[in-house]
Amino acid sequence: MSGTAEHAAARTAEEAVAEAARAYSNWGRWGGDDVRGTLNFLEPAMRARAAALVVRGESFSLSQRFDMNGPQKGWRRRTNPVHTMLDTGTDAALGKQGFPHGIGGADDVIAMPLQCSTQWDGLGHIFDHGKAWNGRDAAEAVTSDGDLVTGIETIAEVVAGRGVLLDVGRVVGDGGELPDGFAVTAEHLETTAAAHGVEVGRGDIVCVRTGQLARVRREGWGDYAGGPAPGLSFWSAGWLHRSQIAAIATDTWGFEVRPNEFPDAFQPLHQVAIPNMGLLIGEMWDLEALAADCAAHGGYAFQLVAAPLPITGAVGSPVNPIALK
Amino acid sequence: MSGTAEHAAARTAEEAVAEAARAYSNWGRWGGDDVRGTLNFLEPAMRARAAALVVRGESFSLSQRFDMNGPQKGWRRRTNPVHTMLDTGTDAALGKQGFPHGIGGADDVIAMPLQCSTQWDGLGHIFDHGKAWNGRDAAEAVTSDGDLVTGIETIAEVVAGRGVLLDVGRVVGDGGELPDGFAVTAEHLETTAAAHGVEVGRGDIVCVRTGQLARVRREGWGDYAGGPAPGLSFWSAGWLHRSQIAAIATDTWGFEVRPNEFPDAFQPLHQVAIPNMGLLIGEMWDLEALAADCAAHGGYAFQLVAAPLPITGAVGSPVNPIALK
Amino acid sequence: MSGTAEHAAARTAEEAVAEAARAYSNWGRWGGDDVRGTLNFLEPAMRARAAALVVRGESFSLSQRFDMNGPQKGWRRRTNPVHTMLDTGTDAALGKQGFPHGIGGADDVIAMPLQCSTQWDGLGHIFDHGKAWNGRDAAEAVTSDGDLVTGIETIAEVVAGRGVLLDVGRVVGDGGELPDGFAVTAEHLETTAAAHGVEVGRGDIVCVRTGQLARVRREGWGDYAGGPAPGLSFWSAGWLHRSQIAAIATDTWGFEVRPNEFPDAFQPLHQVAIPNMGLLIGEMWDLEALAADCAAHGGYAFQLVAAPLPITGAVGSPVNPIALK
Amino acid sequence: MSGTAEHAAARTAEEAVAEAARAYSNWGRWGGDDVRGTLNFLEPAMRARAAALVVRGESFSLSQRFDMNGPQKGWRRRTNPVHTMLDTGTDAALGKQGFPHGIGGADDVIAMPLQCSTQWDGLGHIFDHGKAWNGRDAAEAVTSDGDLVTGIETIAEVVAGRGVLLDVGRVVGDGGELPDGFAVTAEHLETTAAAHGVEVGRGDIVCVRTGQLARVRREGWGDYAGGPAPGLSFWSAGWLHRSQIAAIATDTWGFEVRPNEFPDAFQPLHQVAIPNMGLLIGEMWDLEALAADCAAHGGYAFQLVAAPLPITGAVGSPVNPIALK
Repeated sequence: MSGTAEHAAARTAEEAVAEAARAYSNWGRWGGDDVRGTLNFLEPAMRARAAALVVRGESFSLSQRFDMNGPQKGWRRRTNPVHTMLDTGTDAALGKQGFPHGIGGADDVIAMPLQCSTQWDGLGHIFDHGKAWNGRDAAEAVTSDGDLVTGIETIAEVVAGRGVLLDVGRVVGDGGELPDGFAVTAEHLETTAAAHGVEVGRGDIVCVRTGQLARVRREGWGDYAGGPAPGLSFWSAGWLHRSQIAAIATDTWGFEVRPNEFPDAFQPLHQVAIPNMGLLIGEMWDLEALAADCAAHGGYAFQLVAAPLPITGAVGSPVNPIALK
Repeated sequence: MSGTAEHAAARTAEEAVAEAARAYSNWGRWGGDDVRGTLNFLEPAMRARAAALVVRGESFSLSQRFDMNGPQKGWRRRTNPVHTMLDTGTDAALGKQGFPHGIGGADDVIAMPLQCSTQWDGLGHIFDHGKAWNGRDAAEAVTSDGDLVTGIETIAEVVAGRGVLLDVGRVVGDGGELPDGFAVTAEHLETTAAAHGVEVGRGDIVCVRTGQLARVRREGWGDYAGGPAPGLSFWSAGWLHRSQIAAIATDTWGFEVRPNEFPDAFQPLHQVAIPNMGLLIGEMWDLEALAADCAAHGGYAFQLVAAPLPITGAVGSPVNPIALK
Repeated sequence: MSGTAEHAAARTAEEAVAEAARAYSNWGRWGGDDVRGTLNFLEPAMRARAAALVVRGESFSLSQRFDMNGPQKGWRRRTNPVHTMLDTGTDAALGKQGFPHGIGGADDVIAMPLQCSTQWDGLGHIFDHGKAWNGRDAAEAVTSDGDLVTGIETIAEVVAGRGVLLDVGRVVGDGGELPDGFAVTAEHLETTAAAHGVEVGRGDIVCVRTGQLARVRREGWGDYAGGPAPGLSFWSAGWLHRSQIAAIATDTWGFEVRPNEFPDAFQPLHQVAIPNMGLLIGEMWDLEALAADCAAHGGYAFQLVAAPLPITGAVGSPVNPIALK
Repeated sequence: MSGTAEHAAARTAEEAVAEAARAYSNWGRWGGDDVRGTLNFLEPAMRARAAALVVRGESFSLSQRFDMNGPQKGWRRRTNPVHTMLDTGTDAALGKQGFPHGIGGADDVIAMPLQCSTQWDGLGHIFDHGKAWNGRDAAEAVTSDGDLVTGIETIAEVVAGRGVLLDVGRVVGDGGELPDGFAVTAEHLETTAAAHGVEVGRGDIVCVRTGQLARVRREGWGDYAGGPAPGLSFWSAGWLHRSQIAAIATDTWGFEVRPNEFPDAFQPLHQVAIPNMGLLIGEMWDLEALAADCAAHGGYAFQLVAAPLPITGAVGSPVNPIALK
């Protein structure tokens, strides 16, 4: 069923989400106790094949820098990371540290929202009508003590496999970038994969570049954190489901297109993809260096290791994804 | 020169550090502007060869969990990570979030010292008589604004290569563990490598398992954070230098043996290894699952991706190292 | 009815709390919209009379210091305050700040639980069977967004009036201190007031000194944060109610006696006093200097200004209470 | 000497500051060990007389609310306060807390810069050419461990005395407000005091209302935190010195007029007032309710208790100042 036909079938966000949730649910697919959702698609053999993609030994960090020069403006108490020093070189140089035999040190702390910059959404990040991934009650899963079931620590070791870059900005966009509000459909994803000569397969970690990060770097953050942006169309949900990918990430704040495609809606694709499909979603990834290398040298499929910090009970985690080619 | 002979040659920590600093300095080796130290030994070709070690596609997280159940007791203002929720499933279940069409969410924040759990020491973490890595003034490099030169973000993409596990606890220890205060020498490292049938080479990331983490898991944290521990002997500095390894990590709080091997000394091997040698040091790694797999299946050399969070100006970073076999 | 008779009438914590909640409830007393509870007893005329108690102009801080040398050990994610610098004098002295004409500066941040040291419990801090102060649903009042109704900011300006010190430790205790586990009853409070020659009246802010803080200062924190302690008996609830005091504070972690007076109970007096009575409770106050002055010079009644930081939605607040004599 | 004459005598910020520092220094006035500066002017007898000003028993909080709806935008790592919950009423209502006999609870934490909202500058907040209050080396006084000498805890109990409101906005301004960039001179302060029928005296805590806070409340924060603002003229330094006031506070971010009165200068009056004069400065106070009461009922002199939180080593502190009339 094409995106357009799917679109025609539903009239409101409520109805469209309900229909997509029903159609694309993976509840029970990996048993009632499952905590990893679509990461189950990523099997060891795929991980071994992904390693074989490393030829030159070049590595790329797909992470933005974690500092005060970030997009957050305080909405929903999300600040940029506040990094402060416990000890400094100036103290050491002036002999203020009280250590013996000339040793000195520096030490530091950080306070930050777990979703302030490059990150993974955990499966406990979004609920659909009070239900979390695999049909659990949201209230059973995530309390003030954190995500008691699908905390990000449960996927500490598994997010390593084959990455595929889909540079939709370069293939479909103008000047390498999609405009804000541009909805990336299944067709756009497939057109892009074809142009790259790559096939997206089961267990892949798909990286979708819209080019918005390049634009805000040039023009200023503006409303990068929550404002208009290119992103996945709600109607790409079917593709996300049938492709059996393990995870997907974008260079935008919110993965899906903003404004959302229904009046008065808020992140309806999240509502389908996370609690119903069990899909791992990455946001605010910096795909610029990798995309430039792919444009120059090809290699849109590569090894990707993107292990979250195993913060017990976290519903998201900062991450420094490493692409190896 | 053997450890014993080296030992005999120096009388005080001050003298021993000065001598080792002179003998094992890498200042200028990669130019005056260098910010990566021994990571320069890790070249792309090695990274590609390391990927070829992945056969089964099994992955191992070498990170402890980040939560309040950690070893920190407040010394030097180091607490365990404090993870709190901005939104919860209980709020969502009770309809308190004000979102449309049944979507609900959970969100969270963290406050933590960057060296509270599994981590990399950055090159700005330790100074020798007011000097930081490559001969820079500590006061030029690290102020209250953080590490302005060798901040951990400068190595965002490069910490991926060949990992080698040296399970000194299993090979040399009793019941798989070294006792607190046990100093691991070059000889112990070489004996262990020989027992494993592995050779440590240029550009490797060496993981030294002492077994202390297994012990404190069984017996309680006690003084894991700063108290007595097995660890690298001061006299292993020569081996660390001539082996041309890119990095080294242990399952202990402080990498080197505690109590230190000189009266009234504080981490003298750090003082040689970080500012003078430019060596990347990892601490509090959880090598248990990896070591059990190696004991069962061999494969002491593996692919290791251990990318720090690129926190601008940080002198250390939490990390979730991933070993792939 | 005496404490003993009251005690005999109830068999379990559940029953005793239910009975006391019914007997001592102030729900509706100040209207359905009330957010201030017993602070309503403190009227402007009393505040004016309290000011008239200031004769010598001596002032006393009743606050402990906020720093890492505190009693918290991490239980329920309560750490001691972590204070870090954003700018320092060492940076300024070394010319690292980039300011013009010789100006330099220091700046700082703090991360702390609001109940880590000297503090007020807000009315949203404790619930009784899902009910908050004045009969509100706990879930309506306090979500992840904080206390939406009785947040501590609602009492920003009113906590100033007549303070009365009841030095039970000196009057009833041995060597000026009550032992851990000692339950302070209405009789002890009345005996102490009589010994001081002071009468507790409507609208007063009562400060009860047990001497435990003096003891842990001498002997080490031990389990000050949550362990055995002297404190108010559950059976003092009737006195707290009929005395019509505005607020009460102690020099202990938890106001009421620990262990609690019922098997397997947890802070049953809180459960009666906060949600049912609407009583403002202060904890971990440092009454030592004030008590010494009272012992030397009398003046057990004084002016007390103990304004919480108006943190929007907070269920508690650090405070530096000032007693003026 | 009038402000104009003073102005004419100096040509650059550097020269003007040097001259004013020399003329208005209080170094040594209270001995070499002094840590309280002009608070020494506030003697117990004055505190007793201040209490006698309380007639009606009305109290006013002069604090803004501490929450995300604040003026900070991240400059110099200053965020608005981030308040998060450790336990909530929604958790309690849903039975997720595991407490016995129906008790439930809520608990919270805060992370905030100490100067993010209503606050006192400590004496270690500003340096003049590497010198802190009383002639100490800045590097001796304030390291990464905080202010080791004049930390805000050293004034925990003394900031209580006579407050005087100078509503310059109402007396001199248009519509009750001074425009941004308006420099308040000694003449303006004296005119205002005369209009109010109040005399500023030794040991007073002076509250200067410019009206800017009222304006930004109406029009949005804009650049309240660091941008153009009315405030004290650099040339008011002489008045600040000879009046022998104990402290002064304004309703603006930065106390002194912005832009500063010299090209390329940064807070030159701070540089004179804090390290040289030892003057306690308050910023971002909310004087609106108090000023409205004074306009209606008079009483520009009142009792003021404005005790900082005694955070060990802090160079500033949030405060909830209480005015009693």
